[in-house]
Amino acid sequence: MPKQTTLKDVAKQANVSFQTVSKVLNKKARVSVETEKRIYDAIQALDYHPNFTARSLRVQKTRTIGYSWRPSLPGSYNPILDEFLQSMFQTAETYGYNFLCFPYSLDAQKRVANYKSLVQTRRLDAFVLSTVNYEEPGIRFLLDNKVPFYAFGRSGKDLSFPYIDVDGGAGLQFAVDHLAEQGHQRIGALAWPPDSRVGNDRMEGYFTELEKQNLLLDPRLVFRGEGTSAVGYAGIERFLDLPAEIRPTAVVTMNDEMAFGAIAKLLDADIIPGKDFGVVGFDDVPAARLSRPSLSSVHQPVGQIGKLILERLINWLETGKYPEPAAELIKPELIIRESSQR
Amino acid sequence: MPKQTTLKDVAKQANVSFQTVSKVLNKKARVSVETEKRIYDAIQALDYHPNFTARSLRVQKTRTIGYSWRPSLPGSYNPILDEFLQSMFQTAETYGYNFLCFPYSLDAQKRVANYKSLVQTRRLDAFVLSTVNYEEPGIRFLLDNKVPFYAFGRSGKDLSFPYIDVDGGAGLQFAVDHLAEQGHQRIGALAWPPDSRVGNDRMEGYFTELEKQNLLLDPRLVFRGEGTSAVGYAGIERFLDLPAEIRPTAVVTMNDEMAFGAIAKLLDADIIPGKDFGVVGFDDVPAARLSRPSLSSVHQPVGQIGKLILERLINWLETGKYPEPAAELIKPELIIRESSQR
Repeated sequence: MPKQTTLKDVAKQANVSFQTVSKVLNKKARVSVETEKRIYDAIQALDYHPNFTARSLRVQKTRTIGYSWRPSLPGSYNPILDEFLQSMFQTAETYGYNFLCFPYSLDAQKRVANYKSLVQTRRLDAFVLSTVNYEEPGIRFLLDNKVPFYAFGRSGKDLSFPYIDVDGGAGLQFAVDHLAEQGHQRIGALAWPPDSRVGNDRMEGYFTELEKQNLLLDPRLVFRGEGTSAVGYAGIERFLDLPAEIRPTAVVTMNDEMAFGAIAKLLDADIIPGKDFGVVGFDDVPAARLSRPSLSSVHQPVGQIGKLILERLINWLETGKYPEPAAELIKPELIIRESSQR
Repeated sequence: MPKQTTLKDVAKQANVSFQTVSKVLNKKARVSVETEKRIYDAIQALDYHPNFTARSLRVQKTRTIGYSWRPSLPGSYNPILDEFLQSMFQTAETYGYNFLCFPYSLDAQKRVANYKSLVQTRRLDAFVLSTVNYEEPGIRFLLDNKVPFYAFGRSGKDLSFPYIDVDGGAGLQFAVDHLAEQGHQRIGALAWPPDSRVGNDRMEGYFTELEKQNLLLDPRLVFRGEGTSAVGYAGIERFLDLPAEIRPTAVVTMNDEMAFGAIAKLLDADIIPGKDFGVVGFDDVPAARLSRPSLSSVHQPVGQIGKLILERLINWLETGKYPEPAAELIKPELIIRESSQR
């Protein structure tokens, strides 16, 4: 890069002292109108821009927010990543902040070490977290060290930190309610393992709505596994083997991949998704609209959430005031397509 | 955040001057073994970590690399984003670099202004670019201002800059060759608009292989539009209306979304994808494996490319030597599934 214009160059050009320029720019002193004009003319003539790094050091703030996320499994992908990231760094830019990405380690202790190193070397002021499952040690570290952070998602523990989350339980309630309206009496669930906090929040909505609608509640209606199409496929295989009085005629799932696996198994068994067996996904990935049958799915307003998180985090950094509201749940929307309609 | 330990605290604890500590840490002076031990003991006792910002200012390097990308269209997504980003910021971290994301403006002049502001305020040392279409004014700005950058993709113009690209033409050649092997004589293409540099590189492979295999070359076999499923759907609709002697029995596409749209139209017309009509996508999105029929697609080694780009960019920053090789094409791989097999 070419040599940058410095404050000293400006001072020389304007024929004033370095201190005068600095004070004027930082609005710490008043000078005559003529002097001020001379300084601003020099700034314009020399195309001077303050050095972000120098400013950071002076104010002991990096104006940098860091984010790290769990990478997608091979052959899988993160359908909301682009929208979430774009909404965050666009908001950061609006307020003159940097948005830094750093690696997510699958090893929790290494995650903590990463946070520690970024904080101790003063590379950033605050974090956004989106993996806040039970027992996340990184959260304890950040709280203990009073490092500001904002989460997309809740923790199951008594840890108190500001977050915005999608009300996944409400999403499952919408899905069950819709399937019941379509006449389904026995609705299964393709669920995540019981150590998934996000999954458990969603399943609470499933159980609540079954009870409310007086539908069959049976442990055999819940099939658990990772959020893959293979698990969706295996779950339907299991469901179809159940005795007729238990066998579900519809299913809700934790994500669209499971739902696609469910549909593949139904087609292989010559059961028509929608007409014969209702399927509702979660995430509303673009393929939900493109696939045949198109997939009904729960849609999360991710861009809105990313923007809100960054705005509140930056407001916290600027004012020092703890965010209010500190916790917020945002309702998702059920998009009804072919796979759930008779 | 709590108050950080400074170099001054270390000096005090070790009972030496600030300058001595600084010189020892920067390996600019030799002191007695005892003094050195005292300093390192103090560092450990006080849990001192050098301030990244202060160091950046001292060495006039931010050790920060910036990346910005064109956001996905609504209802669409970027299937290679997660893998590309993760490979880059993991490599950055390995070499002690920061990886910064900043907004991509759809307005080219605003993009230039963004680059300018990031460089002038010294927020980063170098860029990664992945939108290097014809007439990208950002490239001209970076070259004129000697700002190092590395591209994922080529430019069509006589601009010279280091890049790694997928050999999309080779990918299309693999696809055409495979469809010809399946006995197809008339192979259509769902292509991007002619101002797409990436699209034109791929289409060159299509034309080259048609010619090589002595297959029908006809302008009516090319249907152009944005990379959406609607365009894929409309393209097949148009192809099916062609006279029998021109009508294609297979199609190659610029991305998987177009291929999914093509399959949807074939199914609506009671034509069996694979058996009656071959379809090959590009990108190998996870849905390619999940959908029925599963989609044959060209797979790009994105993680490998991200790692190579960052390693070479960092090497350039560290050594000052222009990257060698400055340009490299990496061959993609054709994944054959149901949609292209008879």
